Amino acid sequence: MKSRFEHIALVGKYQSPTSGVMTEPARKTLEGIALFLRSQGCTVSLEAQTAAHMELPGYPALDVDEIGQQCDLGLVVGGDGTMLSIGRQVARYGTPLIGINQGRLGFITDIPLDNYQATLAPMLHGQFEEDHRPLMQARVLRDGVCVFDTFAMNDVVVNRGATSGMVELRIEVDGHFVANQRADGLIVASPTGSTAYSLSAGGPMLHPSLPGWVLVPIAPHILSNRPIVLADITEIAIEIVNGRDVSANFDMQSRPDLRLGDRILVRRAEYCVRFLHPRGWSYFDTLRKKLRWNEGGS
Amino acid sequence: MKSRFEHIALVGKYQSPTSGVMTEPARKTLEGIALFLRSQGCTVSLEAQTAAHMELPGYPALDVDEIGQQCDLGLVVGGDGTMLSIGRQVARYGTPLIGINQGRLGFITDIPLDNYQATLAPMLHGQFEEDHRPLMQARVLRDGVCVFDTFAMNDVVVNRGATSGMVELRIEVDGHFVANQRADGLIVASPTGSTAYSLSAGGPMLHPSLPGWVLVPIAPHILSNRPIVLADITEIAIEIVNGRDVSANFDMQSRPDLRLGDRILVRRAEYCVRFLHPRGWSYFDTLRKKLRWNEGGS
Amino acid sequence: MKSRFEHIALVGKYQSPTSGVMTEPARKTLEGIALFLRSQGCTVSLEAQTAAHMELPGYPALDVDEIGQQCDLGLVVGGDGTMLSIGRQVARYGTPLIGINQGRLGFITDIPLDNYQATLAPMLHGQFEEDHRPLMQARVLRDGVCVFDTFAMNDVVVNRGATSGMVELRIEVDGHFVANQRADGLIVASPTGSTAYSLSAGGPMLHPSLPGWVLVPIAPHILSNRPIVLADITEIAIEIVNGRDVSANFDMQSRPDLRLGDRILVRRAEYCVRFLHPRGWSYFDTLRKKLRWNEGGS
Amino acid sequence: MKSRFEHIALVGKYQSPTSGVMTEPARKTLEGIALFLRSQGCTVSLEAQTAAHMELPGYPALDVDEIGQQCDLGLVVGGDGTMLSIGRQVARYGTPLIGINQGRLGFITDIPLDNYQATLAPMLHGQFEEDHRPLMQARVLRDGVCVFDTFAMNDVVVNRGATSGMVELRIEVDGHFVANQRADGLIVASPTGSTAYSLSAGGPMLHPSLPGWVLVPIAPHILSNRPIVLADITEIAIEIVNGRDVSANFDMQSRPDLRLGDRILVRRAEYCVRFLHPRGWSYFDTLRKKLRWNEGGS
Repeated sequence: MKSRFEHIALVGKYQSPTSGVMTEPARKTLEGIALFLRSQGCTVSLEAQTAAHMELPGYPALDVDEIGQQCDLGLVVGGDGTMLSIGRQVARYGTPLIGINQGRLGFITDIPLDNYQATLAPMLHGQFEEDHRPLMQARVLRDGVCVFDTFAMNDVVVNRGATSGMVELRIEVDGHFVANQRADGLIVASPTGSTAYSLSAGGPMLHPSLPGWVLVPIAPHILSNRPIVLADITEIAIEIVNGRDVSANFDMQSRPDLRLGDRILVRRAEYCVRFLHPRGWSYFDTLRKKLRWNEGGS
Repeated sequence: MKSRFEHIALVGKYQSPTSGVMTEPARKTLEGIALFLRSQGCTVSLEAQTAAHMELPGYPALDVDEIGQQCDLGLVVGGDGTMLSIGRQVARYGTPLIGINQGRLGFITDIPLDNYQATLAPMLHGQFEEDHRPLMQARVLRDGVCVFDTFAMNDVVVNRGATSGMVELRIEVDGHFVANQRADGLIVASPTGSTAYSLSAGGPMLHPSLPGWVLVPIAPHILSNRPIVLADITEIAIEIVNGRDVSANFDMQSRPDLRLGDRILVRRAEYCVRFLHPRGWSYFDTLRKKLRWNEGGS
Repeated sequence: MKSRFEHIALVGKYQSPTSGVMTEPARKTLEGIALFLRSQGCTVSLEAQTAAHMELPGYPALDVDEIGQQCDLGLVVGGDGTMLSIGRQVARYGTPLIGINQGRLGFITDIPLDNYQATLAPMLHGQFEEDHRPLMQARVLRDGVCVFDTFAMNDVVVNRGATSGMVELRIEVDGHFVANQRADGLIVASPTGSTAYSLSAGGPMLHPSLPGWVLVPIAPHILSNRPIVLADITEIAIEIVNGRDVSANFDMQSRPDLRLGDRILVRRAEYCVRFLHPRGWSYFDTLRKKLRWNEGGS
Repeated sequence: MKSRFEHIALVGKYQSPTSGVMTEPARKTLEGIALFLRSQGCTVSLEAQTAAHMELPGYPALDVDEIGQQCDLGLVVGGDGTMLSIGRQVARYGTPLIGINQGRLGFITDIPLDNYQATLAPMLHGQFEEDHRPLMQARVLRDGVCVFDTFAMNDVVVNRGATSGMVELRIEVDGHFVANQRADGLIVASPTGSTAYSLSAGGPMLHPSLPGWVLVPIAPHILSNRPIVLADITEIAIEIVNGRDVSANFDMQSRPDLRLGDRILVRRAEYCVRFLHPRGWSYFDTLRKKLRWNEGGS
């Protein structure tokens, strides 16, 4: 039986943390996976940055746009960060992604490297669950002009400066005034991002099928400022009313140069990111494992 | 100009707390409103229990089903509790409701009694915002048989017995196992209920337009058991695994006789409750006022 | 070298949960420990209820008062609940306690059963850390008359009835009015109890050396009602202002028959409970293990 | 009857926010108070910075050390920030302070400006409550050498850089390892500081008479990292294990140049700050007013 996917792009740990040189075991791992995919009848290419960091002759290198145009699957070997980064970029092409985690289980890279073949083979033949994650489109307006435009899968975060006091933010939803909040900052998180920074700041978890965002204040001055979950068809505007050295992060891409009066706008992007999971996958199984709900704990 | 609504049911404080006898000022208030509605060209009836508690000749009494069948508007004078109670019952008829609060501002009874005419008159002529609130249908299954079936607008709450230890609950969503939770209890709240008990227990606020429910554990044993927001197209099942004197509340209607193995099922009802608000109404204005976000606070 | 302790009382799982009959493995465990203590030159007695549930000839049975008067050490084999129960009772005699946990690690029973001899032997020879835990004295006043008087090591909890709404409580500290709180209930926890129910309800952890209690509201109506930590030289009074079926628990001993106007008074008892830990013991090691701070978690 | 205090230092809003020039109404207010104090038989001096910002001939200017040496009372007219700043500096001299709030009620400046004479006169004649607040001594050690040494009344805060990820901190208490925490930061707050930033970050309130500090993680990665309250006789050490642009704040005095390996040490200072309040003052009255516990709220 032939693989349902003809041309697969293999993506390694995308943002290499330090040296940028891939270790020999990591190289061998990727090579093994490439060979396995070929044995399943697939054409295999390498994502360009991955190719630049490893010696793996015989596999063409494709940049992200070429992957989107030419491949019908991306196979990511890394952590959630790698998955988010590549996911943001191929969303417009509709290319589905499968994630193999190299270290510990991720929220979205849910196939363990050990014995990955047994899990991957049925998926290549069409035995999978499909999971669509909404993407945020975020813009920064200054004096009415868009000075920054990007996508975020996890969250958009507005922060106070490190050594300054609180930031004051004016929040609007679809043109309705919500509140002026004084706090360390404010998080707008998607369902995917709701288990990341937002959770640490006291936000709820949002199931991936929920069409909503959550607004989570970070250390708010007013104790009744609690997280609010909004339908994702709304447009959220955050205006910087007061504060020094205010910055914004979009999935960890930082904009440190915000000014008073700048407005950060967040709305749902046209595209979704498509993740494929092994047949029988359940979001709740991942939650239980990551949050250790099974075990006694305190 | 004629009222857009021809036949209006007037509903007083529905669940009279103690004596059941309406005070003379309350009677005068309702009478004044009835006269005002007539002056706007409307036919006015009294909800049957309201009629039973006050002397107001000349207005026919209708029970809730008759209101649903005959009236094109319900005007509730009371608090949020009265509004919820009548809302649950007329939902199947699609009768819209307007709420006048007698005491302090409610989350859903948002027209102050003082000078209500100025607010009400334009609404009667079609100047209003419409706000649809989803309704939960909740059932209790015992040995696979439904032993209880009801609607809830705010929340479904499963509680431990007052003098016993924690309850252990098995939670499933659309047949997927979520977790076995040990806690004081568990709340399933709608957007409407998210600003009530759920908020006290640490849940987030859900905007009324969000098609979701929130599951909020009450004093959970495992510290990583946090609120989860689910799409409201899912069916939630809560099974009583362990605990003494476990009970469930459905908008405060109590079922104190639950047994181990009982399953409480919650899903979205076919009908919504329709609330009408003055033109320009914003949910966020109410939040700000109720939660005192305007003022300095701490 | 001779044991520093001459006469040791051996205490089994004190409150047998169901049958009350001790299993054969449990009996063998206790017998092994008794023989070990004798081998160290100690006289060994059995706590009376423990003796009643197991066949262990040759060891005299002593009730708790006799243990306090005659023994210079209590060795508890069980969980934290057993330790709390016996601790409350021998506090007035100053008898120190050592805890061996049978199942998983407890907060206060911190010696694992496996290879207990290696840990216990040096302790018997004086190599231990001593840890004094304050005890609460709690009384219920009705019409000014004391109708209940007890000790609690963990917490005093005032609860609403299971199927009723909130309870309203008036809190006073040393005669100063603190607040009227509407909530599911209120916890007064000691440092020992701060890692139990109080933690689930959102309270902070109190180090055992802190001379303080924490007041933790359970699901409070007003969102700014946060936990307060008080010096333990204060007297706390909680008056039941409103609510149906209000009850109070003192380390899980329940008083279900409270009335409006009843006052629960909590102050520091004259005595402390003395726990002995292995040399090098640190409270923080236990916290890290119980709360899984070492591991990745979420 | 003569004032119990002979020489009073008058302190205006100490840290002038912008221009540094005192407004005419503020000048008149201070002058009025000075005249009132003279009418009570007191010698009045002006704190030097206050004097530098206003034209008030006939009152000698004293710097803070001279105030400590020569005056037996400081009268602060401003907000909590002014009170904290002067309090830190005169603590070593034991000079008591009274606070008059110019704007809204503070936690420690509790005498309203309106009709202050009626409140102040009895205090000058000895009718007051005395309230001692512990002071933190904080030091930064680099390679074992102290590079910064200061006092803090509210809190010591270690922060991540604004545009970087989490900071990792190693916490020790009296040489015992507590935990390695990854978070946005960590707050060590005194009872006085427990109602400031610490409360926003989820910390409990500590009564001023509690001899304890609270450690509050800000947006911790591990969900079971909760606030811990420690006896204030302990020494807390916080080591910067990982993170970019880490900074520390001591009552808002910022040290932005911390490095990996730096250790922040916090212990109780030798001195307390002495606040005087009107007879009958209760800490809980202030809490109720500031946190709006009286009112309906949500």
